[in-house]
Amino acid sequence: MPRFEQAREWYPARDPVHGIDHVGRVHSMAERLARELGADDEVVRAAALLHDVEGAAPDENGGRERHELASAEFARRVLAGEGWPRDRIEEVLHCIRSHRYRGQERPETLEAQILFDADKLDVIGAFGVARTIGYAIQAGQPVYAPPSQRFLDRGEREADEPHSAYHEYLFKLRQVRERLHTEAARRLAEEREKVLHEFFQQLAREAQDAPGQSGR
Amino acid sequence: MPRFEQAREWYPARDPVHGIDHVGRVHSMAERLARELGADDEVVRAAALLHDVEGAAPDENGGRERHELASAEFARRVLAGEGWPRDRIEEVLHCIRSHRYRGQERPETLEAQILFDADKLDVIGAFGVARTIGYAIQAGQPVYAPPSQRFLDRGEREADEPHSAYHEYLFKLRQVRERLHTEAARRLAEEREKVLHEFFQQLAREAQDAPGQSGR
Repeated sequence: MPRFEQAREWYPARDPVHGIDHVGRVHSMAERLARELGADDEVVRAAALLHDVEGAAPDENGGRERHELASAEFARRVLAGEGWPRDRIEEVLHCIRSHRYRGQERPETLEAQILFDADKLDVIGAFGVARTIGYAIQAGQPVYAPPSQRFLDRGEREADEPHSAYHEYLFKLRQVRERLHTEAARRLAEEREKVLHEFFQQLAREAQDAPGQSGR
Repeated sequence: MPRFEQAREWYPARDPVHGIDHVGRVHSMAERLARELGADDEVVRAAALLHDVEGAAPDENGGRERHELASAEFARRVLAGEGWPRDRIEEVLHCIRSHRYRGQERPETLEAQILFDADKLDVIGAFGVARTIGYAIQAGQPVYAPPSQRFLDRGEREADEPHSAYHEYLFKLRQVRERLHTEAARRLAEEREKVLHEFFQQLAREAQDAPGQSGR
């Protein structure tokens, strides 16, 4: 069974987005949900510790394409090295491959749904705000840029329109709660969503308080 | 009179903390307060455009020591080059030298108080949250670390205690509103403070929701 101390070697210590602090929060939350829902907590914990192990930083397109598949392959080697039976390894890998919001594979097992939910609870709420800002900074994007009408209507940017943390809120973050699988996570999401909405709505108001130069 | 377009050459385009977006917001807000309070808006606007021109990034100690003095010297050269009279240059330099929260010189004139207030409105509220997180990231500090009792009591960290964005909130941000000089800015600060408190209190709650590994 991989331990959290081991995970410290796999993740950047000071990455505010996909570093060891994020993994620690997801690991604790997944463990809590697994206990509450009677899931296989060994599978859940191993999956949580290994879910982002590859591709922490944004690539040159500002994305993290297929980091879930690369992380699953890394996990296979770690768990095989520890002598896990093949079918239990596959259970963990399914959790990791299906944890991604925009991924191909959907979480089918309770354990995979728990990892998905624990990971998504960390993109809404206060840590979600902090990580979204951190991600924008890592990717060279502004915190706020005024969204075009086209983006508001269809989620597509104009040619000269930067993606910003505010765009990420409009396009993804405010829909996350509906995508959660377990009732336990949806309950926790309620309080987190409140601070998420208040933060980004206030951000837009402040940008309008000082009109003219900010944003683009 | 220096113009905003000129300021684009002086500030980093993509620095979320002390880049051109911050200067644009301070400039617009200072102009708005100057109009509302009948201050000398040429002095206020020149000071706003030049106030952070030196020392945008944290130095090796994670601080920005004396950036207000270096920025004032830069401003002196720019304004002298534009042929401003000496006494008006001194009015602008006083604004710049006294804008710093932890600085030596206090803002004595209405124009200096306006720059101070406009700058401080951008450290509370949603942009304040975003910039505090951005600054922690730039300085290699975590977003959240549990504060020690010693820090809560006296603002001094234990030997192994990292400074975090949450520490910055406890130590500085939640006191900013009381330090504002003008009633107009204090009124605007009210709404901003709400999101500031809610964000950081929720951050601490979420860290406790997933106990064990997060933080230090």
